[in-house]
Amino acid sequence: MARIRGTQKALELLAQMTTWIVDEPERYRGQWRTSFFQNDHPLHIELGTGRGGFLLALAQREKETNFIGIERFAPVLAKAAKHAEETGAPNVAFLHEDVTRLPAFFSVGEVDRIYINFVDPWPKKRHAKRRLTHTNYLRLYKQILREGGSIVLKTDNEQLFEFSLNEFAENRFQLRGITFDLHHSEFAAGNVITEYERRFIEQGKQIYRCEAIWEG
Amino acid sequence: MARIRGTQKALELLAQMTTWIVDEPERYRGQWRTSFFQNDHPLHIELGTGRGGFLLALAQREKETNFIGIERFAPVLAKAAKHAEETGAPNVAFLHEDVTRLPAFFSVGEVDRIYINFVDPWPKKRHAKRRLTHTNYLRLYKQILREGGSIVLKTDNEQLFEFSLNEFAENRFQLRGITFDLHHSEFAAGNVITEYERRFIEQGKQIYRCEAIWEG
Repeated sequence: MARIRGTQKALELLAQMTTWIVDEPERYRGQWRTSFFQNDHPLHIELGTGRGGFLLALAQREKETNFIGIERFAPVLAKAAKHAEETGAPNVAFLHEDVTRLPAFFSVGEVDRIYINFVDPWPKKRHAKRRLTHTNYLRLYKQILREGGSIVLKTDNEQLFEFSLNEFAENRFQLRGITFDLHHSEFAAGNVITEYERRFIEQGKQIYRCEAIWEG
Repeated sequence: MARIRGTQKALELLAQMTTWIVDEPERYRGQWRTSFFQNDHPLHIELGTGRGGFLLALAQREKETNFIGIERFAPVLAKAAKHAEETGAPNVAFLHEDVTRLPAFFSVGEVDRIYINFVDPWPKKRHAKRRLTHTNYLRLYKQILREGGSIVLKTDNEQLFEFSLNEFAENRFQLRGITFDLHHSEFAAGNVITEYERRFIEQGKQIYRCEAIWEG
C-alpha cells in the first residue's frame, strides 16, 4: 500500500484508525457495497478529501449513500479520521491513497459519483497533467464510474474551471448544472460548504461548479 | 417579407441595396450555394450582424466561405450594406429578417456555422426566452445546421455565457474551445474583433467564447 506523504506521527495515528481508514483497500474492489458497507446504497467518493469536513457533513445529510474520501496527505487525513470517530459515521470510509491508483480500488462501474472540491489548480501550463480534471485523470474516472454516473466539481479558480469544462467536453462527458457563482445560483440551497469555501465566501469570491455526466 | 423595425429612410435605402440585401430570401432556401453564390463553399451565417464589421472582415479573410448576416434593425443594416458596397464583397449577403424565421430561409443541414457575437444578454429571468441561445432558438438552429456544424458564441456577459453553456449542453451540443478570456487564449490569433469587442478590450473586460458542435 502506498504511503505517499506524512510525518511518522501521523502515519502511526492512521495505522490505529482502521475503523475509518481502510487498510489494503484493494481487498474491497468490486465489493464495497456487499462486503464493506454491507448495503446496496450508491457509492460516492471525494478526491482530495482533506480533513473530511465536506464528506462528513454530506454523509450526515445523505444517510442512504456510502461515502469514501481519498487523501494522500497523512496529517490531514488523520484529522478526518478523528473527526469521523467523534461524530460516528457508519456510511463513511477514508483511503490513504493517491488518485492515480483509483482503478485498483474500484471496479468498472462501481462508483456513482465523484466529488472534486477546491483541488490544486496547478496554474502553470507545464503542470497541466497534475490537474485532477486532466484527460489522463478523466480516463481513470471513466474506468470506475457507472453509466449515468457523474463528477461534481467545485472550485474558486477560474482557469481551472475553464480548463475542466474543456476537458470534460472533449472526453464526451455531458455537462450539466454549470454555474459561475454557486452561492447565487439554484445550487446554493443543496450545497455543503467546505472549509476552503467558507473562506472564499467571506472574501466575496465567486465559486464555480459543474456536473459532468458519464454516459458510457 | 417581415420588415421589423426601421425608419422610412433606412427602409428606402435597403430597398435600393438589393445586391447585398437579399429580397425574399425564401427563394434561395436550399439553394444558397447553387443559385445565389454559385459555388460549393461552406455557408456561415451571423445572427444580429449589426453594421457588418465582423462579417465583412471575416469574408475578406476567408474567401472560400459564403457569409450571410441577419439583422432586423434597418438603420444598422443599411450601414452594413453600404460598407459591403464600398469594399466589394462577392461572398457576402445580408437578410433584413428576424432570427425566429431562420428555417424559412435555410433548409435542413444547409448551414455550416452560426456566429453569435455580443448579442443582447436579456439579463432579467422573465426575458430568458429572448436570449439567442435559449433552447427554443437552439431548436431552430438544429433545423438548419449540418451534422458536425457549429455555433460560435462570443460575449462579454458572464451570465449569458453561463446560461448558454448550460443550454448547449442540455440540448446535446458538444462544447469545444471554451475560453473565459479570449484575448489571452489560443483563439486570440484567429479572432476577428467586432465593434463592441474593441470597446470591451479597451476597458480591459474579459471576452467569453465557445463553440457548440451539432452532431445530429
